[in-house]
Amino acid sequence: VADVSKVIRFDGQQWEGVPARPYRDSPSGSSGVTRHTLLGQADYEQSLNFLTRYFEVQPGGSTSLEVHRHPHAVVVLRGAGEVVLEGKTHDLRPFDCVYVAPQAVHQFRAGPREPLGFLCVVDRVRDRPTPVELEHPSDVDSRG
Amino acid sequence: VADVSKVIRFDGQQWEGVPARPYRDSPSGSSGVTRHTLLGQADYEQSLNFLTRYFEVQPGGSTSLEVHRHPHAVVVLRGAGEVVLEGKTHDLRPFDCVYVAPQAVHQFRAGPREPLGFLCVVDRVRDRPTPVELEHPSDVDSRG
Repeated sequence: VADVSKVIRFDGQQWEGVPARPYRDSPSGSSGVTRHTLLGQADYEQSLNFLTRYFEVQPGGSTSLEVHRHPHAVVVLRGAGEVVLEGKTHDLRPFDCVYVAPQAVHQFRAGPREPLGFLCVVDRVRDRPTPVELEHPSDVDSRG
Repeated sequence: VADVSKVIRFDGQQWEGVPARPYRDSPSGSSGVTRHTLLGQADYEQSLNFLTRYFEVQPGGSTSLEVHRHPHAVVVLRGAGEVVLEGKTHDLRPFDCVYVAPQAVHQFRAGPREPLGFLCVVDRVRDRPTPVELEHPSDVDSRG
């Protein structure tokens, strides 16, 4: 398949031709999260060394609390929520950016009434996330 | 400087601590364009192999028509405009995505009354753009 330029239109609800896939729902991990890989699919944009994904966390949902060696570059697109980042919680609103450094424990959470939608760019070749078990969940609730 | 996680807040107009820099204004190149490097600055997020930049093109302005080997992953954040991509012009609205393949001639243009703001992710290590001179400017005005 050729590596050709293209435009992917957003119709107000979703991107044309981009499927929303459930993202690792599990009792101990993420809940209510969909992933949309926008740019960097291996068969189409092979020249990109990084993937541009959009995640949407439904109200009350969250990604799993996890850690990995590869960094994340995140830009919030819609809704409201928060990120737990190395033990501190930060509110998130559209266009806020987050840098998740290597080995930083992190989790994205939607607010109770709004979803949280964000872009997350990662290296195409990267390590797998490791879930983190909290001994004291309240540790991550202190505002910072 | 340590490679540490962080949140960059958007205050509704700009990102805290991120300067807007004029981007190569020239009579033959871009006009009315500012660049904001959000994530991937060498001194702070050294683990990122890619840079997340935000460009804003003022109404009536445009980036230079150019070509390079490195690809672009683009996500529109605000305003309206169009992209010239390999000789075809495509309208752009928020959240539309553009993949600019290697060696594709391209130019981003804001509409007459609205700016065009977009994220553009690129490899940290990349070749320099080469400006393209049009013999027949009308060639890029056909809709596709």
